[in-house]
Amino acid sequence: MAASSSSLSKPFFSNTIPTTTKTHMITTTNTISFTRLTTIKASAKTYKKGIDTSLVENSVNTIRFLAVDAVEKANSGHPGLPMGCAPMGHILFDEVMRYNPKNPYWFNRDRFVLSAGHGCMLQYALLYLAGYDSVKDEDLKSFRQWGSKTPGHPENFVTPGIELTTGPLGQGIANAVGLALVEKHLASRYNKPGHEIVDHYTYVILGDGCQMEGVSNEACSLAAHWGLGKLIAFYDDNHISIDGDTDIAFTENVDRRFEGLGWHVIWVKNGNSGYDEIREAIEEAKSVTDRPTLIRVTTTIGFGSPNKANSYSAHGSALGAKEVEATRKNLKWAHEPFYVPEDVKTHWSRHISEGSALETEWNKMFAAYEKKYKDDAAELKGLISGELPAGWEKALPTYTPEMPADATRNLSQQCLNNLANVLPGLLGGSADLASSNMTLLKMFGDFQKHTPTERNLRFGVREHGMGAICNGIAHHTKGLIPYCATFFVFTDYMRASMRLAALSESRVIYVMTHDSIGLGEDGPTHQPVEHIASFRAMPNILMLRPADGNETAGAYRVAILNTKRPSVLALSRQKLPNLTGTSIENVEKGGYILSDSSSNNKPDVILIGTGSELELAVKAGDELRKEGKAVRVVSFVSWELFDEQSDEYKESVLPSSVTARVSIEAGSTFGWEKIVGAKGKAIGIDKFGASAPAGKIYKEYGITVEAVIEAAKTVC
Amino acid sequence: MAASSSSLSKPFFSNTIPTTTKTHMITTTNTISFTRLTTIKASAKTYKKGIDTSLVENSVNTIRFLAVDAVEKANSGHPGLPMGCAPMGHILFDEVMRYNPKNPYWFNRDRFVLSAGHGCMLQYALLYLAGYDSVKDEDLKSFRQWGSKTPGHPENFVTPGIELTTGPLGQGIANAVGLALVEKHLASRYNKPGHEIVDHYTYVILGDGCQMEGVSNEACSLAAHWGLGKLIAFYDDNHISIDGDTDIAFTENVDRRFEGLGWHVIWVKNGNSGYDEIREAIEEAKSVTDRPTLIRVTTTIGFGSPNKANSYSAHGSALGAKEVEATRKNLKWAHEPFYVPEDVKTHWSRHISEGSALETEWNKMFAAYEKKYKDDAAELKGLISGELPAGWEKALPTYTPEMPADATRNLSQQCLNNLANVLPGLLGGSADLASSNMTLLKMFGDFQKHTPTERNLRFGVREHGMGAICNGIAHHTKGLIPYCATFFVFTDYMRASMRLAALSESRVIYVMTHDSIGLGEDGPTHQPVEHIASFRAMPNILMLRPADGNETAGAYRVAILNTKRPSVLALSRQKLPNLTGTSIENVEKGGYILSDSSSNNKPDVILIGTGSELELAVKAGDELRKEGKAVRVVSFVSWELFDEQSDEYKESVLPSSVTARVSIEAGSTFGWEKIVGAKGKAIGIDKFGASAPAGKIYKEYGITVEAVIEAAKTVC
Repeated sequence: MAASSSSLSKPFFSNTIPTTTKTHMITTTNTISFTRLTTIKASAKTYKKGIDTSLVENSVNTIRFLAVDAVEKANSGHPGLPMGCAPMGHILFDEVMRYNPKNPYWFNRDRFVLSAGHGCMLQYALLYLAGYDSVKDEDLKSFRQWGSKTPGHPENFVTPGIELTTGPLGQGIANAVGLALVEKHLASRYNKPGHEIVDHYTYVILGDGCQMEGVSNEACSLAAHWGLGKLIAFYDDNHISIDGDTDIAFTENVDRRFEGLGWHVIWVKNGNSGYDEIREAIEEAKSVTDRPTLIRVTTTIGFGSPNKANSYSAHGSALGAKEVEATRKNLKWAHEPFYVPEDVKTHWSRHISEGSALETEWNKMFAAYEKKYKDDAAELKGLISGELPAGWEKALPTYTPEMPADATRNLSQQCLNNLANVLPGLLGGSADLASSNMTLLKMFGDFQKHTPTERNLRFGVREHGMGAICNGIAHHTKGLIPYCATFFVFTDYMRASMRLAALSESRVIYVMTHDSIGLGEDGPTHQPVEHIASFRAMPNILMLRPADGNETAGAYRVAILNTKRPSVLALSRQKLPNLTGTSIENVEKGGYILSDSSSNNKPDVILIGTGSELELAVKAGDELRKEGKAVRVVSFVSWELFDEQSDEYKESVLPSSVTARVSIEAGSTFGWEKIVGAKGKAIGIDKFGASAPAGKIYKEYGITVEAVIEAAKTVC
Repeated sequence: MAASSSSLSKPFFSNTIPTTTKTHMITTTNTISFTRLTTIKASAKTYKKGIDTSLVENSVNTIRFLAVDAVEKANSGHPGLPMGCAPMGHILFDEVMRYNPKNPYWFNRDRFVLSAGHGCMLQYALLYLAGYDSVKDEDLKSFRQWGSKTPGHPENFVTPGIELTTGPLGQGIANAVGLALVEKHLASRYNKPGHEIVDHYTYVILGDGCQMEGVSNEACSLAAHWGLGKLIAFYDDNHISIDGDTDIAFTENVDRRFEGLGWHVIWVKNGNSGYDEIREAIEEAKSVTDRPTLIRVTTTIGFGSPNKANSYSAHGSALGAKEVEATRKNLKWAHEPFYVPEDVKTHWSRHISEGSALETEWNKMFAAYEKKYKDDAAELKGLISGELPAGWEKALPTYTPEMPADATRNLSQQCLNNLANVLPGLLGGSADLASSNMTLLKMFGDFQKHTPTERNLRFGVREHGMGAICNGIAHHTKGLIPYCATFFVFTDYMRASMRLAALSESRVIYVMTHDSIGLGEDGPTHQPVEHIASFRAMPNILMLRPADGNETAGAYRVAILNTKRPSVLALSRQKLPNLTGTSIENVEKGGYILSDSSSNNKPDVILIGTGSELELAVKAGDELRKEGKAVRVVSFVSWELFDEQSDEYKESVLPSSVTARVSIEAGSTFGWEKIVGAKGKAIGIDKFGASAPAGKIYKEYGITVEAVIEAAKTVC
């Protein structure tokens, strides 16, 4: 940025440090020496920057008080983090990051994720000062109110400038790993000598809570493994969490853990006013290019509040009028609420022109690139716009009943491999089950530290980290389509990240194999039962359970076309026949008639199946027809999609006059009353599975053709 | 154990190491020095043990081939881990652990958890050799078959001797943290000078997969924080996971990470045949009493198999007849399948008498203790038997409508505190939200390293670890009643451990507050919507959503009396009035009539509510009655409990002739069709929440008295 070319003397801020501040010493419980850990103290080194000290202090205090005032007005929120992190926030957004406030979606912007999402007033204040249209004065004043652009946690789908929805702790740092992965991947795919088209950093602020969550450890292990050198994480080491001092539950040596994970670690001792320390740490972090960097910044939560700083009481509620007043006095901030000094305003105003210039410059660079590398440029443009290549759907395989039976997990692999040929944005992998989930893209190698061009991701046994990383991938660039895989039952490990995908409108494809008791011997710990129901109940996520090849291809089609919601594909381990009547197109209706021997939309009975049990419904239908019944067989591959059809269509498939209905699905019957009605019968599994060969379990659990026939006769 | 007093020369085994074995070097990526990390090499030190080398080798190979043969017979399973871990398994069960095979539930036994549960044939082979009645010859031969005692993963509810159900990776090590926590807690509560009544170790074997999972990092951080010195974990460092060499996704320095977490770390370089190394490591681990120990044991997966050792192909499927033959030859094991040499049989047979002697000795010790410390002994006996103290239910608070409105999270705290006075087994805490979840037991301090007698657990922001630790607590001692807490939405982080609680029949109480949009400003990331439905769909877990003080107390009563299933209590952040008609006893029926103005079981309309929305149903009922309707208001606090009532009772509450039904619940309507029927109406929330004051969201989302009245008029 332009500012970095001019000069600034070191700011000094210690006169306003509240008396309750304490310096947290690293807990050293043994004698390991840290030869790599850089400790950055308030050093003598003077930085040359383009703004003067008082301006920085003014800006930092502006950020602090915008947060304090907004929380106070809402009488709800988290003032503590913004007050402690304002210095690093200021330096990042005013001195370091490259972005264009008037186009928050400029492709080559630096990314920033506030993993400690509760501190979102920090981010709103920074977006406001930087000149983003999404956060205006009135938005700060309607913090946490109905319909505002400034909700209680950052929401990417509400506020342009927010990269990802955070709040649930640990997710944001893992999202950031996904963002940094994409930068490394696309840079290696598209950059050419002298044409660094893809070139940005990913910054993240995470807190003690994020550090305690397992998901962050999973993702950070991968970040180092992948050598994501342009990922720079600020750990807001304020030693306070909701329950009080972190000493009560968190005494590990974080520096050493991150060293173990393979990160470069820097400690900034004075995050409250050590601007130069922070600047120096960022420079050092940028100089380490083969691994991510954790900058542990020791701060004081609620900095400046004489009675609440360094205490949990500054964390999650308004300071209260009296304490706000005391804080104003302590920080010498004799201004009305939401005040922004003119010099601060003027100073920050340059980001609009500078940001625009950055984008213009990049556009020029891209034009030169495009001239020289037409195909690459076109492909990258497609990824950026999110437009799917024309005719991509033709790559989807189709099947006929004559073709051999196969497991839908295998059919899924055919789809993935066919699609990878035509969709440059498709990339993904499995949590150490690639050979079981059948997720390898055969034409590509593994995305690794030294082979970042490749598109197979190896997540290790880290489902939760995988899910959160995929959310980051999905939101880096519109045209990227991340998929990830594990056994369906282990969605339990990653559910928090899947819910965030649904909430934040991430197009992630979950390839979930071994989708029922059909996996057999591994037993109940590995057999999903309630999982289908649990996703049907979740808003804005598609739960698809294809029955054969065509439905699997159709499920992929739906998953790719639904750009604003994730899709879960439940796939079988066991072989399934290709059925008559299935098609790619039918899947998008969610439920459709597979076969019918009735007339006038009045079958004697409707048999409804999903996935591996659709075959049972078909066979039972055949038997019943032999006995003279007019039978309709319906595939119910996705409830959500069926729900979205017109009433006429729904009536044409499930006429309300026909109450004789039987459903069969090797999972919980919970919810099926809606489909089969009070007079119908739902065949399913409402207990845990068992360890035995799959056929035996199916029989013992009554998931059989005979059971369907018997039930049909009961309800007819 | 008696064996430790006699002598044995060092076994030597290298002649059978397969050619594919490689030594894994620690990946050192920087210059940190490990002054504490002990590396144990095949040293010169000679151990004095009571068995000769060839016997150990024979025993180890017996274990290996029992696993190989059982997997081969089932043509399904995981031979690789047992073949690699047989040496540590042998040493643990034959030389180190104190247990009584004829009473797997002897209180003071050492605990063992196979966190890498897929390797369960190791454990079955060891239980078999040790003389447990649960695993006989025929059980080994019916491995992974319907109804066998040897399912595909270890199940505590199937096989006595298995402490906990494992398989989902990372859970077992976290369970073990719970077991070790209990040992430390009970020892400090009940032991007296000269009377070490509670005194055992907790051993665990975990693999690379467990190490990658976030849940293990969470739990291991706590284990060190709590100073669980009697927890000894063997890390089966075989460098192979399902997708191949762990190098593709797992290159962190585990030793250093564990040093960072605060563990003592030892490296056994030769886990395949370095018996003395393993023994020495265990002795060292025992000598470190202020922290847990991780013994990294480098092994070869599938040790002995000439063509599959050290490869993923040994991990998860039968070796195949040809390779089994080659392995027999390689390990010089010219025996038929399932063969146990006589000397091995004879040698292991002593565990029956020795185990019995250990328990008898302990019984004597306990008798002496009982004589001196009558009250303590009685209390501990109660905990061991699981019998609840007489009259405990009287401690439950009761409420009348005149009492002030209060949040059910506060009412929950009253229950917890009242119960903690009468239930010596109640202990628990929150994932850093004690002051929000209202879970502190006021008469106790925090369970910490130096205050292990206390009963408030501080889990930090580690929901998943918390859940898994509670499963360990629940299964250590029958009378222990662990509770744990977070915001209801964050059950997503710990769902895998909650499912395991349900499957393994753990009485854990989940105190889940902030149970709907009623939490307000924090917004959709913090507002559960689909969670109630998702637990209603899960087998063997009680989902309870109490509406006021009496129902909250009733929910606790149910949770405590249901010893073989966990309970989820969804509790409000906002204040709720105490309603007329609620009672502690009614809760156990799941659904019951709160008020009724109809006669002959024929109301005009039935209004059904749960939790915070029961109040809305009541108010709507009052209004409708004013208009002359015969209205029944039903509280539906737990679907599972209602389902278990007699048909007569159900008909008395929800007569099938009355189809005019309206339900209201601030959550997904998924599943409610079962209760309200096709002609009824379910009022709920089928999208994500929003950030705003709670009252505003309720209104905007149509969760109002007016909506109930309107719906009632539509369905009547």
